[in-house]
Amino acid sequence: MRAAVLRGGEIVVRDDVPEPEPGVGQVLVEVEACGICGSDLHFAQHGGTMLDLGRQMKGMPDLGDVGPSETDLSRDVFMGHEFSATVLDTGPDTEALPAGTTVTSLPVLMSTTGFEPIVYCNDIPGGYSERMLLSAPMLLEVPNGLDARHAALTEPMAVGLHAVNKSEIQQGNGALVLGCGPVGLAVIAALQVRGIDPIVAADFSAARRATAEKMGAHVTVDAAQESAFDAWAREGGGKPVVVFEAIGVPGILDEALRDAPQHAKILVVGVCMERDSVVPFYGAAKELSIQFAMAYDPMEFASCLRAIAEGEIDVAPMITGEVDLAGIPQAFDDLADPEEHCKILVVPGS
Amino acid sequence: MRAAVLRGGEIVVRDDVPEPEPGVGQVLVEVEACGICGSDLHFAQHGGTMLDLGRQMKGMPDLGDVGPSETDLSRDVFMGHEFSATVLDTGPDTEALPAGTTVTSLPVLMSTTGFEPIVYCNDIPGGYSERMLLSAPMLLEVPNGLDARHAALTEPMAVGLHAVNKSEIQQGNGALVLGCGPVGLAVIAALQVRGIDPIVAADFSAARRATAEKMGAHVTVDAAQESAFDAWAREGGGKPVVVFEAIGVPGILDEALRDAPQHAKILVVGVCMERDSVVPFYGAAKELSIQFAMAYDPMEFASCLRAIAEGEIDVAPMITGEVDLAGIPQAFDDLADPEEHCKILVVPGS
Repeated sequence: MRAAVLRGGEIVVRDDVPEPEPGVGQVLVEVEACGICGSDLHFAQHGGTMLDLGRQMKGMPDLGDVGPSETDLSRDVFMGHEFSATVLDTGPDTEALPAGTTVTSLPVLMSTTGFEPIVYCNDIPGGYSERMLLSAPMLLEVPNGLDARHAALTEPMAVGLHAVNKSEIQQGNGALVLGCGPVGLAVIAALQVRGIDPIVAADFSAARRATAEKMGAHVTVDAAQESAFDAWAREGGGKPVVVFEAIGVPGILDEALRDAPQHAKILVVGVCMERDSVVPFYGAAKELSIQFAMAYDPMEFASCLRAIAEGEIDVAPMITGEVDLAGIPQAFDDLADPEEHCKILVVPGS
Repeated sequence: MRAAVLRGGEIVVRDDVPEPEPGVGQVLVEVEACGICGSDLHFAQHGGTMLDLGRQMKGMPDLGDVGPSETDLSRDVFMGHEFSATVLDTGPDTEALPAGTTVTSLPVLMSTTGFEPIVYCNDIPGGYSERMLLSAPMLLEVPNGLDARHAALTEPMAVGLHAVNKSEIQQGNGALVLGCGPVGLAVIAALQVRGIDPIVAADFSAARRATAEKMGAHVTVDAAQESAFDAWAREGGGKPVVVFEAIGVPGILDEALRDAPQHAKILVVGVCMERDSVVPFYGAAKELSIQFAMAYDPMEFASCLRAIAEGEIDVAPMITGEVDLAGIPQAFDDLADPEEHCKILVVPGS
C-alpha cells in the first residue's frame, strides 16, 4: 500500500509498504483524514535532538518489554497521529465495531505482547498511510454523522482540553493564550467550553487572530503591536490569570516569567524542542508557577469527540487545506506561513 | 552609632551612623543577634544584577508612593534582616511592648507615609547595626525564655515553612531536598514538623548532611557519590515526591527537570541570581510542575517563632559562629566553606 514516511529528514511517498494485517484485538482501517501536527514538522527537523533529550532524561516509568520501542532515524519513520478512519476488517477472536463504521482512536496500538504509540514508529503505519491498524477496545465511533475530516481534529483538540484541565483554571479566573496555532486554538476552544472569561489571545498573524476569535477568544492582541501581558493588564479585569504558553520556541518562557503578573500560573503546552534560557529570579520574585502539559487521557479524548460532534466546538475554521499523500512535503512547507494555513488534512485516499 | 554597611561591594563598619529616632508607631530596639543570610552574600556580589532584573520585570503590583524605595548602590546599603532585639524606647503616641522585652519581627518598617522592607536599604539601619527601628504592631515577643540568638533564626526558618506550605505537600508524599544550606535545612525542619516521611536530603558537604539529619532528614545523600534522584528512587518507597531546590545556582533547575520522576513538583526556594539554561522538553515529557517560593507571610513567621520556642524545631545545630560588627567581612568569607559554617550570627553589642 501507499504511505508517506520520513527518510533522512525528508518526506517520501512509498507504494511498497506491506499491507497491515490485524492481530488479536486489532482492526484494519482505511484512513479517512489525518491532520498534520506541528510536532511532525518539529520531528522532521529535530527528531535526533528529541530522541537524544529523551535518552538523557531519568524519571520515566520503566515499562520493560511491553513498552514502546525507540525510533530509529536511520530507518523509515511512519507518521500521522490525528486521524479518522473507516473499519475494514477485524483480527482473529476480536470483537470490534463493524466494517463500515467511521471511527477515531487514541494513537496507541495494543497487541498481545505490549503497546506502541502510533507516532514516529519504524514498524507501525500511522495516518499518513492508506490503511493502518487500530486497537479494537480503543475505537470511538464518530457520532451524529460528523464529517470524518472534523473527527480527525479530536486528537489536537484533546491536547488543548488536557492543558486546560491540567491548569486547574477556576471560574473567576481569566486566561491569556500566547500563540494561536493549532495548540493555542485548541486551548481557546476548551476554555470557551469551560466558560472562562475573558480569554485574551495573542499572535503575530491576523489570520490566526481571526480564527482565535471564531474559536472563542474574547480579545485578540497583535503581538507585533503590543505585549500580550500589557493587553492582559488592560483587559483582564484584575482576575487571576493562567497564561497558556502555546508557542514553544526559545525565549517565550522567559518572557512569560518576566512579564506575568505576581502569583500567575504558566501552563506550558507549546513543546520547545531546544535548550532555552530563563531568569529564575523573575519566577521567585513573583512566586510564579509553571505547569508543563503534554498529550491527554482517554476520557479527555472521548470528551473532545463528543464536543465536536455536538457542535460545542466548531473545528471547521481551523481546517485550511487538504492534500493527498504526495502533497505532504508541500504542505509541510506551506504550514510555515500562518497567514495561509493552520491545519492541513492529509486525505490518503484522494 | 555603629553599623556595618555595604559600600562598593565591600562591608565597611561605620561609627557615625545617625542614631535612629522612632516615629509614630515605631520602636527603637537594641539588636541582640542577626543572622547572615545567603542572600546578603549574593547581594554584596550581584546586587547590581538583582536590581536590574527587578527593573526589567513586569507584573509586580504598583504600590505608588507608599511602597519601598529602590536601593541605590552608589550609596551605603544597610543589611541584616534576620534579627532579634530588645525594646529600648517607643515613638510618640505609640502602644508597644515595654522596654526590656526581647522581640523579633518581620523585617518591614511602617511609618505614617508608607512602608519599607528592612533589607538592602539606603536609609533604614537593619540588623547589622547596634540599634534599629521596628514597627510596634509587628513586634513578636520572644516567649519561653528562648535564647535571643535562637529567636534570630525565626526569619530563615519561616522561609522554609513558606516553601513547604507553597508546595502543598500532602501526607503520603515524600520530599527530596537538594542542598542543605540554611534554606534547605529550614525546609527540612518544616517538613519534619509536618510529619513528611521520607525526607531525603542531598549535599556535597558531610557537615551539612550531619546537620540535615539533626534537623529531621531521614536519609542523606553525598551528592558527589550519587545522584539525589537515584537515591530518591531507592529510598522514596514509590511515593509522589516534591523536590525542593534549595541550592540556587545555574544548572540545578535543569538537572531537576531532567532527573525528577514523572509528574513531580519542583519547589524552587533557592534563589538563582543568574540567567539559567533549561530543557523545557524534560518538563513537557514528564508533565512536571515548578513552583517558585520566596519569603513568607506574617502567620508563617509567627508560627516559626512558636515552633522554635516550644522545641519543635531546634535551630542550635545550624548556628556555627558568632561575630561582632567588625567580624562580618571575615564571616562572609568563612561562609564559603560549608564544612566549617552554616549560619553565623552577628552580635553587634559584643
